[in-house]
Amino acid sequence: MTEETLDIEIDQIDTPALIIDLELMENNIASMAKFFEGADADLRPHSKTHKIPVIAHKQIAAGAKGICCQKLGEAEVMAAAGIEDILITNQIVGPRKLWRLANLSRNSGVTVAVDSLENAEMISKAAVKKETKVNVIVEINVGIDRCGVEPGEPTLKFTRQIIRLPGLNFKGIMGYEGPFMSLPNWEERKKAAIKRLRLLVETSELLKGSGIDLDIVSAGATGTYNITGAYPGVTEVEAGSYVFMDTTYRKLEGVNFNLALSLLTTVTSRPTEERVVVDAGMKAITREFGMPEVKGIDGLELQKLSEEHGTLRSTTLEQRPKIGDKIELYPSHCCTTVNLHDVAYGVRDGKVESTWRIEGRGRFT
Amino acid sequence: MTEETLDIEIDQIDTPALIIDLELMENNIASMAKFFEGADADLRPHSKTHKIPVIAHKQIAAGAKGICCQKLGEAEVMAAAGIEDILITNQIVGPRKLWRLANLSRNSGVTVAVDSLENAEMISKAAVKKETKVNVIVEINVGIDRCGVEPGEPTLKFTRQIIRLPGLNFKGIMGYEGPFMSLPNWEERKKAAIKRLRLLVETSELLKGSGIDLDIVSAGATGTYNITGAYPGVTEVEAGSYVFMDTTYRKLEGVNFNLALSLLTTVTSRPTEERVVVDAGMKAITREFGMPEVKGIDGLELQKLSEEHGTLRSTTLEQRPKIGDKIELYPSHCCTTVNLHDVAYGVRDGKVESTWRIEGRGRFT
Repeated sequence: MTEETLDIEIDQIDTPALIIDLELMENNIASMAKFFEGADADLRPHSKTHKIPVIAHKQIAAGAKGICCQKLGEAEVMAAAGIEDILITNQIVGPRKLWRLANLSRNSGVTVAVDSLENAEMISKAAVKKETKVNVIVEINVGIDRCGVEPGEPTLKFTRQIIRLPGLNFKGIMGYEGPFMSLPNWEERKKAAIKRLRLLVETSELLKGSGIDLDIVSAGATGTYNITGAYPGVTEVEAGSYVFMDTTYRKLEGVNFNLALSLLTTVTSRPTEERVVVDAGMKAITREFGMPEVKGIDGLELQKLSEEHGTLRSTTLEQRPKIGDKIELYPSHCCTTVNLHDVAYGVRDGKVESTWRIEGRGRFT
Repeated sequence: MTEETLDIEIDQIDTPALIIDLELMENNIASMAKFFEGADADLRPHSKTHKIPVIAHKQIAAGAKGICCQKLGEAEVMAAAGIEDILITNQIVGPRKLWRLANLSRNSGVTVAVDSLENAEMISKAAVKKETKVNVIVEINVGIDRCGVEPGEPTLKFTRQIIRLPGLNFKGIMGYEGPFMSLPNWEERKKAAIKRLRLLVETSELLKGSGIDLDIVSAGATGTYNITGAYPGVTEVEAGSYVFMDTTYRKLEGVNFNLALSLLTTVTSRPTEERVVVDAGMKAITREFGMPEVKGIDGLELQKLSEEHGTLRSTTLEQRPKIGDKIELYPSHCCTTVNLHDVAYGVRDGKVESTWRIEGRGRFT
């Protein structure tokens, strides 16, 4: 700590440490909110990216309708932190989980995705037992072949079946465009997204034409926020990564948010002139979307991640790091990198302003 | 819980959940201990695999000399749990960390790897300030080109430099054979390992011949335990994965430990006859060494891991899983998979016998 101010400077944090540039994150939240101010659809940010309740509150304060969670445990964390409108974009199965879901519904506004009659019946039974109603939306397979009922008639048939079940409130439908949202070229991405969105919105029209009301038609992600968010008939967009961004999303044409998340590391070994080793590996930053990138140092490239080592190569004589120097890495995948950490440090002007526990981490049951 | 016994059955655990088959793990610990009973070298298991103090105690009770940790935070956890002989197989850098290391040395038997004079001087300074001695070993680069001083004369020169520094106890040398330990063919692996071990042991001979005493000549891993552990001049072997094993290590000829670790998952979606989706993805099981494998169900293969979904394909009509069914997955990399979890359940005869917090997880600073 500096004596006069009691501030903790960024380079006094023990590493590896997850760093959020607060100003850049706030800009991301504000600029996404601005887009949705002028759109028919609402923003419902996916909290799987950050898993930090206060960030969810900031997103809602900026205009978001509510949040998405991917897991029941995450939803419990967010509900306990006072978030009132939560969409679990996933199926919840298992006796104890259904009991938890029904209890959560008694105290919070929670909606869950279903794609099978078996699961809908399980939720119905739990809701009736707990004397509550659980909100459900039908997940539709719009092309990624993971979960979901097929669009069109199969969804109509399925929706008619679950609407009859006691203890359930039918709220609408969702369809996740999946890997198509990561096409780097804007026009290709738009074309691919619209192809899937058409299936989703046509299905919502089919339901409405059959006398079934829908509050929610949900889709999208950061890569398609201004495609999905502008598509007539979509009511909500599930963008998550925009809040922090990562080097993979930054490569997408038309997705202009700031890289607000980095991993602070320390140089622990300099065995040769060219080789620089830092104290972070696969257990602190992920690489399934490619190698993380070095922030702000020319001629320095991450070449390998072992479990707890990052090996870099320095190709210039200038700015060659010494033992003890700090190096920041930009993740290639923010969601899975956050998932490795218990704490994230919010930093402004080089000083730590917040130490946030990543309360949703590890809450994957 | 079953009414008569109060037992929790394995399929009552909320998923995804890390499961340790206690009997298989105990067999792994016993059979590794048996090898080292007859060897000149000692076993010093690497606790980075399990990060659970009670397992470290079991390994020591079975004859291990002490343990390895990869991080200072892990060493603090293990020391607090009463482990008395800890080798940190990594460089510790940073003012606050050096202060922590010196404090740890006042209360526990801890040894740390060094490979630069800068770092050795930092440790020396902290130790003198805290009026303690820190044990150090010199890490040698035996061929993986990560950290480490070059073997032979450069190590002799470096060792002479650090021996002079106050506050340090020189204990010996270590050299990690790295990726060479994962060659599937036994003879190739042995040849590659011995090539590196020779560099290590020749260097220890050079030091001894120059009047420098060594307690520790450390190397090895699960893939080379019976090569490294039998090589004259090696005093300790750092095997870690043998305690749990994974599908990658199982493919190595001559490494015959049991697959004691699995991830319990639940089927949450069955969109088609062939497609089965479970509630575990990359945030609960890793895939950098390949896809996890399904335990005990023929004709069922994991095809994709999203963040929180695992998509499997069922190719037979028999044993086709239903929604709510449990599926166990064997990790392809036990160390990074454990790193995603807060808790591991020890199971015997299908019943939960222990709920162990993975105390070292997230302690990477």
